[in-house]
Amino acid sequence: MEKLKKYALLKDEDQFHHEGAVELLVFNFLLILTVLTIWLFKNHRFRFLHETGGAMVYGLVMGLIIRYATKTSDVESGTVYECEKLKSGPSSLLINITNQVYEYQYKREINHQNVNGHHGSAMLQKMTFDPSIFFNVLLPPIIFHAGYSLKKRHFFRNLGSIVTYAFLGTAISCIVIGLIMYGFVKAMEHIGQLKGWEFHFTDCLFFGSLMSATDPVTVLAIFNELHVDTDLYTLLFGESVLNDAVAIVLTYSISIYSPKENPNAFDAAAFFQSVGNFLGIFAGSFAMGSSYAVHLTKFTKLCEFPMLETGLFFLLSWSAFLSAEAAGLTGIVAVLFCGVTQAHYTYNNLSSDSKMRTKQLFEFMNFLAENVIFCYMGLALFTFQNHIFSPLFIFGAFVAISVARACNIYPLTFLLNFGRKQKIPRNFQHMMMFSGLRGAIAFALAIQDTESQPKQMMFTTALLIVFFTVWIFGGGTTPMLTWLQIRVGVDPDEDMKAEAASQGASNLDKNTTKAESAWLFRVWYVFDHRYLKPILTHAGPPLTTTLPEWCNPVARLLTSPSAYGDQLKNEDMDYIINNDELTENYEASTHRPVPAQDRTGCSQAAGKEDIHEGDLGLGAYKLQLEHTPGQPQLNSSA
Amino acid sequence: MEKLKKYALLKDEDQFHHEGAVELLVFNFLLILTVLTIWLFKNHRFRFLHETGGAMVYGLVMGLIIRYATKTSDVESGTVYECEKLKSGPSSLLINITNQVYEYQYKREINHQNVNGHHGSAMLQKMTFDPSIFFNVLLPPIIFHAGYSLKKRHFFRNLGSIVTYAFLGTAISCIVIGLIMYGFVKAMEHIGQLKGWEFHFTDCLFFGSLMSATDPVTVLAIFNELHVDTDLYTLLFGESVLNDAVAIVLTYSISIYSPKENPNAFDAAAFFQSVGNFLGIFAGSFAMGSSYAVHLTKFTKLCEFPMLETGLFFLLSWSAFLSAEAAGLTGIVAVLFCGVTQAHYTYNNLSSDSKMRTKQLFEFMNFLAENVIFCYMGLALFTFQNHIFSPLFIFGAFVAISVARACNIYPLTFLLNFGRKQKIPRNFQHMMMFSGLRGAIAFALAIQDTESQPKQMMFTTALLIVFFTVWIFGGGTTPMLTWLQIRVGVDPDEDMKAEAASQGASNLDKNTTKAESAWLFRVWYVFDHRYLKPILTHAGPPLTTTLPEWCNPVARLLTSPSAYGDQLKNEDMDYIINNDELTENYEASTHRPVPAQDRTGCSQAAGKEDIHEGDLGLGAYKLQLEHTPGQPQLNSSA
Repeated sequence: MEKLKKYALLKDEDQFHHEGAVELLVFNFLLILTVLTIWLFKNHRFRFLHETGGAMVYGLVMGLIIRYATKTSDVESGTVYECEKLKSGPSSLLINITNQVYEYQYKREINHQNVNGHHGSAMLQKMTFDPSIFFNVLLPPIIFHAGYSLKKRHFFRNLGSIVTYAFLGTAISCIVIGLIMYGFVKAMEHIGQLKGWEFHFTDCLFFGSLMSATDPVTVLAIFNELHVDTDLYTLLFGESVLNDAVAIVLTYSISIYSPKENPNAFDAAAFFQSVGNFLGIFAGSFAMGSSYAVHLTKFTKLCEFPMLETGLFFLLSWSAFLSAEAAGLTGIVAVLFCGVTQAHYTYNNLSSDSKMRTKQLFEFMNFLAENVIFCYMGLALFTFQNHIFSPLFIFGAFVAISVARACNIYPLTFLLNFGRKQKIPRNFQHMMMFSGLRGAIAFALAIQDTESQPKQMMFTTALLIVFFTVWIFGGGTTPMLTWLQIRVGVDPDEDMKAEAASQGASNLDKNTTKAESAWLFRVWYVFDHRYLKPILTHAGPPLTTTLPEWCNPVARLLTSPSAYGDQLKNEDMDYIINNDELTENYEASTHRPVPAQDRTGCSQAAGKEDIHEGDLGLGAYKLQLEHTPGQPQLNSSA
Repeated sequence: MEKLKKYALLKDEDQFHHEGAVELLVFNFLLILTVLTIWLFKNHRFRFLHETGGAMVYGLVMGLIIRYATKTSDVESGTVYECEKLKSGPSSLLINITNQVYEYQYKREINHQNVNGHHGSAMLQKMTFDPSIFFNVLLPPIIFHAGYSLKKRHFFRNLGSIVTYAFLGTAISCIVIGLIMYGFVKAMEHIGQLKGWEFHFTDCLFFGSLMSATDPVTVLAIFNELHVDTDLYTLLFGESVLNDAVAIVLTYSISIYSPKENPNAFDAAAFFQSVGNFLGIFAGSFAMGSSYAVHLTKFTKLCEFPMLETGLFFLLSWSAFLSAEAAGLTGIVAVLFCGVTQAHYTYNNLSSDSKMRTKQLFEFMNFLAENVIFCYMGLALFTFQNHIFSPLFIFGAFVAISVARACNIYPLTFLLNFGRKQKIPRNFQHMMMFSGLRGAIAFALAIQDTESQPKQMMFTTALLIVFFTVWIFGGGTTPMLTWLQIRVGVDPDEDMKAEAASQGASNLDKNTTKAESAWLFRVWYVFDHRYLKPILTHAGPPLTTTLPEWCNPVARLLTSPSAYGDQLKNEDMDYIINNDELTENYEASTHRPVPAQDRTGCSQAAGKEDIHEGDLGLGAYKLQLEHTPGQPQLNSSA
């Protein structure tokens, strides 16, 4: 008897097990299809549908099949059981059913009106991810990779503008969307579409904040492939990376804004608490993330064991995420700044083998995670069970994001151009306006809470906006570049060289010859170069020369022996790192991990693109690439 | 009000969230410590404690801290609620608690006597993995990596012996352990230690099968570092890899062996059903795994995009696992054979960049997963709540595994030596006897089912055996090699070269100059070389020459254009692949991904080890490494 029961138990467990496998297999299958499609597109140089767009299409098709081809069963769910003995939901529950004890684990709280929505096929329910998976599993590698692949020198050159767009711009965007949506919501209430719903201004602001996270991954991939002007690339990329972090913390702060009495009235205390929350969480996550890029790698000679080095690097970055979460901060933001800091300091301590390994590892994780999210978005359109399509709200949202993007880019650029030596021209502004795509972050923020009806309507709307912007704006990037006459086929190395040699190659109306936001950049640069780099890496001048004399004992301890020898090469150092990074492609599918001596090969690959750049009616720049004398120094660490 | 409730809800979710983060952070911290320790050990060439052993030590310490330093709280758990309305446990349960609906997810069935064991600190419970995580997340990368890094030529040369040890040897080991343990169990019943327990012979066999999975990862790492004789390495590695697969399927078959009436009586029908299950599951998983090493990569020109190629490779391998699971077979076994087949066929189609990327990726995943499991083992000794320490049973288990290992190795080797041209010498046999370590698989099999008391006792015993064998036998490998006078510092390339040039370098009493299990190997080799390789890869002779004439149209379609050109180089082909593989280290921590031209660098690295090989009192063999003329052909694909 015991045996027989056990057999039944085993069978039961198998059932659970296999369903999980089938579900994952569906995703695997979609991803394999996506990979093959991307290959086809890349092979035929077809740039109108990006891989993420393709992943969404496959997700849609699969969602359609699952929705309408699988039978609706699972009678048990949908029934609510009473339990008078319990006072609150414990994390795990032991239940005696027909004399057998089962353990159940807490999943979530369900709103009363959604209880019936839990009918439906078991497959449909199984295909629904837990929303926390996005923030804990899928987004961290994407965000880390973004931080890790920031082109540092260009990023710091444009730091002022990027920070302005990311903070001020996102705030503007959030408020503008919130206001416009509040107008639409009032109109909808007026014509009786929102009967019995609670829809406050804070909900509109919530929608505004989650819709403010731009994700121009499609646009950036094309920029990268066509070698679009590096400053434009950096502005867009930097903005999108930082603004994700801002939007996430903003959304969280708004969601916990809880006025004491009337939710419609303005409560100053609660407002300032929210602002304080925002600043606290952002600053905390920033500090947590950047502190984890520890210089452990400087003093251990791990570089002899690249496997260990890669492992340590990965574990430290993950710890940054987990520590921030454990401390009640935002892991995603921490992981972003961890990525930036790792790239800036730790990267220099790694052996050349580990540099390649870490890049490839994070590139791979980013690739998988991104495609899973976009596949899932396609799926969600059909498998999510509580969609609320409101044409008026959707129309309003499209109007709102366009207006908000315009209010973000044009006025801020106008102000920034007063301060910038190198102005941002009109066509760049239009391109930035055009590149306000929404993507993974907006989706993940929207799916986090879909319990109330307003939130469900927001989720549906956000999903449609992602689809629309990725397919339409993403697909229209190449024509748009032509139309706006934006320079393509730029070799970033040449740009830097041209600047270094002060050759004002003024072929087009704009050149990236002068650094902007000069003083911020310079103050930071000097501090970083004199103190941080020597402390954290093997590079930079010896601390004994930069620190005051009374610090000498400490300085001697912290200075790497190799720093003394490098003293003469310091000027070149940043270039070298920079050059090394620029050969790396953001998408990197055509990129081979060859060391410096193969760099000419890379520029040849860029030359192959000329056929297409010709299509755009713009000249390609071919200058001879000359190596700085400092370069062999980099190779010597290999 | 709504807002306030939502705030509370958010806080609640955060609580759940943060605890997960803390738990993972603990693991991360342990892994970081392990990495740093490994580095220290490697740096000081300290070979007595392997990284897995170190991971266990840290796990133990952390388990001790968690066990005794955290407070026991969580009053709610341990209480069983009644639910008369339910007839069976549904997969998800909606419960109304104080007018709020909560969703609970099915976790597992609990035996009545264990209900009270669920008291204890929340931290303790959180630190307990779901056992299915081992089989679905942690073991697959380890097993795949093992299959992927089999040294093919040596493996196929010793195929007969390896298969004998793995199948016949594991069966012998399982039965011997089962019988001895049954004796001990009867003795324990006699002295009244097992009052009220049901402990059948099948339970003893179950223990025997799970204890038959050897995992000499520690020993192999040292072999690899010291360049121990390749045949011995291959025999041990091949046996341990295959025998994991056998033990897993065997354990499963025994666990579902359910005689109709008396569980102690022998039921022929049930027995044959179990044997049928074993064969069916094993063969099915084998077929599933090997069929997934698809030759998609042959016809798509993915090699231009190594990122996509790596992605596809990873997804296909994972699909093999999931398909097998979905079909009710054993995913682990499928993934093993998928690895072997991928290494044999798909690997040849990959671009050199992807070859490196896939190797490094799986190496990295293997490294992380292995250390997580060994850390967890250390933890489990203190955090697992239902340990049953029975000195007699533990003593019996040690006796049983020693006797079983002896009954496996010595008689089978005696028989095999009749068939082998190249006999397995005495000292090799002793070394194989000594290398019967237990590891991750035995642990994962034991932790799968810890509901009944006999299973809990088995789990405790298995855990202690793993600790003991990894620390004692693992640490004793180097002294044992010296004592048994086993040749170290062997360059596998030289071995192969020596054989090829028929130079009978008979310095010691044994040489690996002749292939064993000749006919099996030759039949397979010819079939593989003539048909499978040309169909699945770009290598091998054109199919037009090997297939009968009437197949010509198909043959022309399937033959890769590059095959025609390669026709003359076929003899070298296997060497090239082989050489290429042999430069890769199983542990690979000292291994740099340098292409072929750097191979001399690798042999220099081996030369550095000479200092230590001298310590063992054995001569190191330094022959000049000469490249076959075929080698440039491999580089041309780069």
